[in-house]
Amino acid sequence: MSETIAASDQYVQSLARGLSVIRAFDAENVQMTLSDVSRRTGLTRATARRFLLTLVELGYVRTDGRNFELTALVLQLGYSYLSGQTLPQLAQPLLEDLSREIHESTSASILDGNEIVYVARIHTRRLMTVGIAVGTRFPAYATSMGRVLLAGLPPERLDAYLAEVELRPLTERTLTTEAALRAEVQRVREQGWAVVDQELERGLRSVAVPIFSPAGEVAAALNTSMQATLGLDGPTLEEAAASVLPHLQEASRKITQALAARS
Amino acid sequence: MSETIAASDQYVQSLARGLSVIRAFDAENVQMTLSDVSRRTGLTRATARRFLLTLVELGYVRTDGRNFELTALVLQLGYSYLSGQTLPQLAQPLLEDLSREIHESTSASILDGNEIVYVARIHTRRLMTVGIAVGTRFPAYATSMGRVLLAGLPPERLDAYLAEVELRPLTERTLTTEAALRAEVQRVREQGWAVVDQELERGLRSVAVPIFSPAGEVAAALNTSMQATLGLDGPTLEEAAASVLPHLQEASRKITQALAARS
Repeated sequence: MSETIAASDQYVQSLARGLSVIRAFDAENVQMTLSDVSRRTGLTRATARRFLLTLVELGYVRTDGRNFELTALVLQLGYSYLSGQTLPQLAQPLLEDLSREIHESTSASILDGNEIVYVARIHTRRLMTVGIAVGTRFPAYATSMGRVLLAGLPPERLDAYLAEVELRPLTERTLTTEAALRAEVQRVREQGWAVVDQELERGLRSVAVPIFSPAGEVAAALNTSMQATLGLDGPTLEEAAASVLPHLQEASRKITQALAARS
Repeated sequence: MSETIAASDQYVQSLARGLSVIRAFDAENVQMTLSDVSRRTGLTRATARRFLLTLVELGYVRTDGRNFELTALVLQLGYSYLSGQTLPQLAQPLLEDLSREIHESTSASILDGNEIVYVARIHTRRLMTVGIAVGTRFPAYATSMGRVLLAGLPPERLDAYLAEVELRPLTERTLTTEAALRAEVQRVREQGWAVVDQELERGLRSVAVPIFSPAGEVAAALNTSMQATLGLDGPTLEEAAASVLPHLQEASRKITQALAARS
């Protein structure tokens, strides 16, 4: 289907390009010149200019004549999605309770393509959290929430994922073979939770549990992140996981129940 | 400028139309047929179909053949903006502390055009909050955060706002004359905070204070919402405002300091 539509006259290339211009902006590229946008999108300067001026006209971008930056109107696009979703609305207050109990950042995410995407997040000030927010995406294979979500896939969809994904080492601990990842996903499915120790980022540990849809399928994942122990006197990975797991499971039960009550 | 660009060959109409298709989805229109999208955007069915199929191709929309809905990839667009903003990142944990102290929902917003837009929000479960999230917009004139933000405008920008805005009665209490609003904004500027009693929505009261940029300008507003007293034995508006105001002012000071430390 992909090639058919992209090649056909049904495909609106201008829309694809315009959205790529919006996505060229990020934490490291808050303000960009025409040249910056051209370089980051691969569009010619003339084309990038047309899209930027159109976005200025529509209110999504502002400019001082030289630099361009996104305006808050861009949030409205994400809001079009979020306002229609039941899970983030229900999960947010329960995550707040959970973060208060365990004094750690907590999040909920769903699987979208080969990535997890955060749909709710509470951050405490104990961890460096700049850059993680609703909308942040990470590869599923290297995260505790991703492994919970992969464990919830039907076998054929898990096979398709494993056949397609490129398992890149994000740290020296990342599982990068299909066999190792498959075994770990199987273990997560059996035990009902996942723990990941510094596979996404050095110094970061994470524990996740599933949230279930009213039909009993894994609808989302819930996690908490903790700093890996620096000294010898801190808790081990197992101790750290065991201390937060009952709280995560209780929060997951409440969100699962709230979803069922809404359906 | 508006007419010049919109009329010129620099304007990319397809981008404008594609973004309008994304924004046609909301809490009341989570799933839409082709006819629904056509009706809500004013595009012909053939045109709406081209845009929807392009969005499906790009991953922003999914379809079962009949119904269309946004995917979580849309969040990435909002994230392009949010990840570059310092204020939401700094404000979120301080709002969490504030909500915990006063047991009420708290928010931060900025002025964008004639509207306030939420850039951070903590909701407690005491109020009905479905539908208010990061990205939500309200008219500035009828909200406590809006009045704080209007009070921070240079005189000529406030004049331009008042000349342009249509003051519609959202409840029977909404200030709808320029004179009344101007007087109230002046009072807010002098006292340094705003209180709005059921002007946006019946039953909803709100108190707001400014957050300052390192240059000393009003950069954002911080608020809390409370239910209006239903019985005769509840706190008066003045009592309710007085009880939360010191907490709001303290949180605002911390966020203002954090912004200064970052700059």
